[in-house]
Amino acid sequence: MKNFRFKNPVEIRFGKGTIADLGELLGDETKIFLLYGGGSIKKNGVYEQVKHGLTGKNIVEFGGIEANPQYETCMKAVKEVQASSATFVLSVGGGSVLDAAKFIAAAAVLENKDPWGIVTGDVSISTALPLGAVMTLPATGSEMNSNSVISRKEWGEKRGWSSDHVLPRFSILDPETTFSLPERQAANGVVDSFVHVMEQYLTYPVNSPIQDRFAEAILLTLIEEGPKVLTDPGNYDVRANIFWASTMALNRLIGVGVVQDWATHGIGHELTALYGIDHARTLAVTLPGVMQFKRQQKREKLIQYAERVWNITQGDGDVKIDEAIAKTVLFFGKMGVPTTLGDYQLGGEAAQAAAENIRKKGWKLGEHRDIGPEEVEQILLLRA
Amino acid sequence: MKNFRFKNPVEIRFGKGTIADLGELLGDETKIFLLYGGGSIKKNGVYEQVKHGLTGKNIVEFGGIEANPQYETCMKAVKEVQASSATFVLSVGGGSVLDAAKFIAAAAVLENKDPWGIVTGDVSISTALPLGAVMTLPATGSEMNSNSVISRKEWGEKRGWSSDHVLPRFSILDPETTFSLPERQAANGVVDSFVHVMEQYLTYPVNSPIQDRFAEAILLTLIEEGPKVLTDPGNYDVRANIFWASTMALNRLIGVGVVQDWATHGIGHELTALYGIDHARTLAVTLPGVMQFKRQQKREKLIQYAERVWNITQGDGDVKIDEAIAKTVLFFGKMGVPTTLGDYQLGGEAAQAAAENIRKKGWKLGEHRDIGPEEVEQILLLRA
Repeated sequence: MKNFRFKNPVEIRFGKGTIADLGELLGDETKIFLLYGGGSIKKNGVYEQVKHGLTGKNIVEFGGIEANPQYETCMKAVKEVQASSATFVLSVGGGSVLDAAKFIAAAAVLENKDPWGIVTGDVSISTALPLGAVMTLPATGSEMNSNSVISRKEWGEKRGWSSDHVLPRFSILDPETTFSLPERQAANGVVDSFVHVMEQYLTYPVNSPIQDRFAEAILLTLIEEGPKVLTDPGNYDVRANIFWASTMALNRLIGVGVVQDWATHGIGHELTALYGIDHARTLAVTLPGVMQFKRQQKREKLIQYAERVWNITQGDGDVKIDEAIAKTVLFFGKMGVPTTLGDYQLGGEAAQAAAENIRKKGWKLGEHRDIGPEEVEQILLLRA
Repeated sequence: MKNFRFKNPVEIRFGKGTIADLGELLGDETKIFLLYGGGSIKKNGVYEQVKHGLTGKNIVEFGGIEANPQYETCMKAVKEVQASSATFVLSVGGGSVLDAAKFIAAAAVLENKDPWGIVTGDVSISTALPLGAVMTLPATGSEMNSNSVISRKEWGEKRGWSSDHVLPRFSILDPETTFSLPERQAANGVVDSFVHVMEQYLTYPVNSPIQDRFAEAILLTLIEEGPKVLTDPGNYDVRANIFWASTMALNRLIGVGVVQDWATHGIGHELTALYGIDHARTLAVTLPGVMQFKRQQKREKLIQYAERVWNITQGDGDVKIDEAIAKTVLFFGKMGVPTTLGDYQLGGEAAQAAAENIRKKGWKLGEHRDIGPEEVEQILLLRA
């Protein structure tokens, strides 16, 4: 195990009816900037529960945060926060709204610097408005981490950033709020969470049995419960288990003391930026390519994954790896999530375009930092 | 899954050389009350590392905290804290020192109330001095929880209490500090951690696959790594894995949203209070009795435990349960930890005495609160 630091002070309220805890969680905060997305919260009763929980508070509302939240939209919200002198940002929605809330909370108190620098890392922030979340979509794990991904359409950019200053003070996870999710979003969330685990697990062994088994625990649970969300969408336990799995998938826990990859996300972000494909769907296309392309470097962990997660006990290592990749593709298919570029009427040109974007950034991806533009193209050609 | 709340803000620094982080972690704290035990830290180099990490700080030392920390000793320390006007309590040692530190941090700022009330629950605390830990013994999980157990010898009492006010601000876990542990303490720590998991796992199913698999992950790791600590005591990875398993075993994570038992601890504490048997060793005696006595109520989880932790696939449910209990006893034996009252030259009289103590307290133990004095006696008679 490698040396590590771990701290995650986010307060979680999990279960039915927990939106009612909002008043208690906000305590003395009186001027709340209420951020949400396309308005689904007004159809499924979440908005009313939130408003009830905020009784007695001064509320400034800002709706319209889109999937893959845009810099331009966020900057409009920043201006409103500043004009209203709100002191707390409350995100109600999925990972996109919360990612936007994190950026807004930081940008609202940034003085005399280019806010885009928060995203690129050129600006180091030293503070942010406090924020909290009512999470309505299990997927990004944003409810219990400091990560945020912001896009800038006119530049074709999509970038992740992270700062402890934007860790939510609390996150409310009521599985009942996810009953009304469109099937596609529910399925995307399962795949997104699955790949978050794989990015922290499928590298090379460093003798970390707790982290490995925790990762496998999340994968097994997603494989078991994921398909049920499509066949039995009103099952509370299924929704609850997927929600908690999703939070655990990206809250630092399984990533401490081990080696991490994140090449699939790096490549996937380019596919979203270029073609607007849902985040999780870009991961489902890319991950099998990374597994195949890196099968030698990831050999030991691929075999462990085959044996422990898919219970593949027959055959030599290569057979096990082949079968594990096939099972992974099959699982994504079972979730209704396509796994090839062809499914999006894309091919070699997309592989080239994504590689070109990586070349422009000068990035080297993966746990060995050896996946540059050429390798990105080869990985995606495996998925053409 | 049941509704739950989760928050654990303890900052962990894990790995070789991390005691050097002390200065950074203490920040502006300048007057440190340095608490330790019998002096082993002066023999294994930990004391020097700590003193080096505290360079520039004003230090008040207090040594001599015993295993099963005594109220009387703690109250002497409280007087010294108050006399020195130290502002931060730093525990250097194992769970006993840290449990004492938690009590001292709370009692030092308690006004006009009986400090023993903190332990009994008759006094509710609203504040405590901040505290931190350099942990040198994987066992109690005290480094990442709010629990403390304090004993009062003259009354034959040993009581657990808990308060978020005494959560450590940070805990430093350097596995190298555990190389010099006596074999008996290292083995006890593995058994203690194992039983912590069982108390939160072996009850009845509430559809919580993440928590169940995390619990099994810790059990499997302790079973795998535990015996190695005896055969290969200088192996860093073994020490590191046991340390992290032990922390995860009792840091709230696996206990959220599920039903918890804690009867084994309730009964075990009486055996320590009555006969001075090491805490972990009382658990090794008691747990198999609880498993046997409660085999019907715990049936589903016992079978899951048999199958997933011990890979017992043959036979009907009862056969699997019998074998799982036998394997558990065998594992404790492999750790060199005795599992019967007879091993301590005790028998029915000990079962009666423990039952009598439970009767005096009016306690009902277990996840169904149906283990009273009669049941305690029967459970211990199974271990005579």
